[in-house]
Amino acid sequence: MDYYSSYITKLIEELGRLPGIGSKSAQRLAFYIISQPEEQVKHFAETILSAKENVHYCQCCCTLTDRDICPICASPKRDHSTIMVVETTRDMAAYEKTGQYEGVYHVLQGAIDPMRGIGVNDIRLRELIERLKGDVQEVIIATNLGVEGDATALYLRNLIKPTGIKVTRIASGVPVGGDLECIDEVTLLRALNGRVEQ
Amino acid sequence: MDYYSSYITKLIEELGRLPGIGSKSAQRLAFYIISQPEEQVKHFAETILSAKENVHYCQCCCTLTDRDICPICASPKRDHSTIMVVETTRDMAAYEKTGQYEGVYHVLQGAIDPMRGIGVNDIRLRELIERLKGDVQEVIIATNLGVEGDATALYLRNLIKPTGIKVTRIASGVPVGGDLECIDEVTLLRALNGRVEQ
Repeated sequence: MDYYSSYITKLIEELGRLPGIGSKSAQRLAFYIISQPEEQVKHFAETILSAKENVHYCQCCCTLTDRDICPICASPKRDHSTIMVVETTRDMAAYEKTGQYEGVYHVLQGAIDPMRGIGVNDIRLRELIERLKGDVQEVIIATNLGVEGDATALYLRNLIKPTGIKVTRIASGVPVGGDLECIDEVTLLRALNGRVEQ
Repeated sequence: MDYYSSYITKLIEELGRLPGIGSKSAQRLAFYIISQPEEQVKHFAETILSAKENVHYCQCCCTLTDRDICPICASPKRDHSTIMVVETTRDMAAYEKTGQYEGVYHVLQGAIDPMRGIGVNDIRLRELIERLKGDVQEVIIATNLGVEGDATALYLRNLIKPTGIKVTRIASGVPVGGDLECIDEVTLLRALNGRVEQ
């Protein structure tokens, strides 16, 4: 790495820490950034800093927002008695894009993952429990369909069920347009077990 | 995109302008950056700015460096009469990693590419021609083996040949460890035409 100026090496190292960016990509990005006009590079750095400075968790649903209460939580048009629990702000955006869900969200900002030392106190669970004291009719669990998401869903179910609030989980099965022969066995079995009478 | 705070959207847009970063990757990177501690994000932004501020072209070989003259051009141990012409600082680093080349370099910072409007005046050719007025025995052309690199190599050959300076180009052929059946036809033919008597 000492074939480059230390400034370039440091930039490559920083970029290489980003998820999904290997050492070759980091080099490519570093040289691209250096080749940009100074104004553009300054603007890039300022955008990074200003996103970090201005974005924080919504005081209600814990999504990432630049307001105290995010637009969804603040909207009187949404059904505040239905809370969809998701892992990340991106998952929330994925459901928002459908344009069909009218309830509100709770963003855990992660999932229970004992293998990586992420326990119930490391995700935004406390804030969810606090919200359940209000007028909540249904909690829709929409954590990911993997081991961590499943563990989190189970934990949430066991936590909420005794309170009498309805708990549901989004359906798991073959995706629309999915070709059966390309779908993994676990999904096929889930789709079979979750079959719906026509 | 208005599912996110405008600060996040702007950051996603900026990251999406980087080469090889699609919109999904840009989202992933943006949320990763925001999730980092403030100190780490500040350090990242500062590293970007300081690389841009301190790195410029070597006054001799046009590589990217933080000095007026890069360490290779400044080294008395290198053979300054042999100049290897490469397209980028990364190509130069690739040859430096071999640890075997003892000459110096000239970094064109690009290649002639009429399709994208990059002509002879858009790469660091003028600086190379200036260097040839000194004591130069050989110019080794090591531009990439694609259309643009080939065009640049041909242009350089025609430019330098009349001056009497020896012009060579790095060999093109099957890479070491390369499996013949996986190599493209153009490379196979180049390897055949460039065969060496044993």
